[in-house]
Amino acid sequence: MATPKALAFDVFGTVVDWRASVARESAQFLAQINRNYINPAAFTDAWRSRYIDVMRAYQSSGRAFTPLDVLHREMLEQTLLSEDIDPMTLDHTLLEDWNRAWHRLDPWPDVVAGLTRLKTRFPIVTLSNGNIAMMLAMSRRAGLPWDAILGAGVTRAYKPDPRAYLGTVEALDLRPDQVCLVAAHHSDLAAARACGLLTAYIDRPQEYGGRAAPDAKAVQHWDWSAASLTELADLLDC
Amino acid sequence: MATPKALAFDVFGTVVDWRASVARESAQFLAQINRNYINPAAFTDAWRSRYIDVMRAYQSSGRAFTPLDVLHREMLEQTLLSEDIDPMTLDHTLLEDWNRAWHRLDPWPDVVAGLTRLKTRFPIVTLSNGNIAMMLAMSRRAGLPWDAILGAGVTRAYKPDPRAYLGTVEALDLRPDQVCLVAAHHSDLAAARACGLLTAYIDRPQEYGGRAAPDAKAVQHWDWSAASLTELADLLDC
Repeated sequence: MATPKALAFDVFGTVVDWRASVARESAQFLAQINRNYINPAAFTDAWRSRYIDVMRAYQSSGRAFTPLDVLHREMLEQTLLSEDIDPMTLDHTLLEDWNRAWHRLDPWPDVVAGLTRLKTRFPIVTLSNGNIAMMLAMSRRAGLPWDAILGAGVTRAYKPDPRAYLGTVEALDLRPDQVCLVAAHHSDLAAARACGLLTAYIDRPQEYGGRAAPDAKAVQHWDWSAASLTELADLLDC
Repeated sequence: MATPKALAFDVFGTVVDWRASVARESAQFLAQINRNYINPAAFTDAWRSRYIDVMRAYQSSGRAFTPLDVLHREMLEQTLLSEDIDPMTLDHTLLEDWNRAWHRLDPWPDVVAGLTRLKTRFPIVTLSNGNIAMMLAMSRRAGLPWDAILGAGVTRAYKPDPRAYLGTVEALDLRPDQVCLVAAHHSDLAAARACGLLTAYIDRPQEYGGRAAPDAKAVQHWDWSAASLTELADLLDC
């Protein structure tokens, strides 16, 4: 297998545990609005479950590029409405802070050590649909030592649009076969492979609280496969 | 004076000593092509002196966004021709490596310590005309701990075009008056101030080997002024 010249990381689920983190945050906000009878993990799942539909609608809408923070806010308001909570009745600052729960996601336990080792040999960059301000805030809080924040904020295209992968490769001034996408999602890896990128799968069985991922059946034989970023560092001799 | 929420750095001259670094590299390449009678510092000055004209021509050309690596290469070939060296006669790999001298620039002595201190309190990002691959290679080599690489690679506009400053502010999801440009050039700071940014001047008297900068007379009273990034860290209580 060819050695990559750079590693590009999916972030939500691969690097950070969005579900436990947003549930922890949502528990506080649900309590603040006197709705602590709503299960915060279920609320988080409902919020995130709108993601695929929102992305699909966005791609076909012809809408100008819209940062994920804005799409998350729309998804939050829809989720609140589905719980019979009118977001217009809530404090604006509280809603904004709740939406920024996605800026305060905890990394999986292996991540900081794994990235630090991988960075000794490879440039490490993000290839996420998150916007730059979101990735920056998350990375500072969690201590993620990225060399650069690429992905949607630079390419103005959302995965799995090929322009998201190829624009990131272009920003690195590399060929697709010199960049390896590191991701916990088979669908993301499949789209990257279709663009010519190398692929590394990271198994994150707790991403959905132990339930199967929506794309669990889309498995292929990826170039590398590991249970953690520290194990990937072992495989790549870092 | 309002406290900024993020610091955005000019890089060439402010963070790295491009002149001594490119001269050091050019001395080696001039020797390889048996032209060591050419003074490498003068060659570097000639190469860099084309920058302002090239930028002006680019801005008015309607040319699609072109990474600085490509513009540097064009400037290198023009500089060689002015020394009666036909770049077509030179080895392609040598020329490419020579052009990448701009990826191997040394930071001024205060930079790594200064950035490390500033980063404890502020997000630190680049706001340079350098492309992402160039900034990334330079930063890994020099140990520059940026939170994100912004500027031309993200905005697809070159300073002093207002879109370069305002696009960087937008990527940070901040207002212009919440971002401070840190730069050694009065012209750059003036363009940032015209966009509403805060301004911090860093004095780099050796940028041109002790000679005055082209914009030395464009001085204004900037929001902060310091002789080094460590002194700026003092001023900003980092």
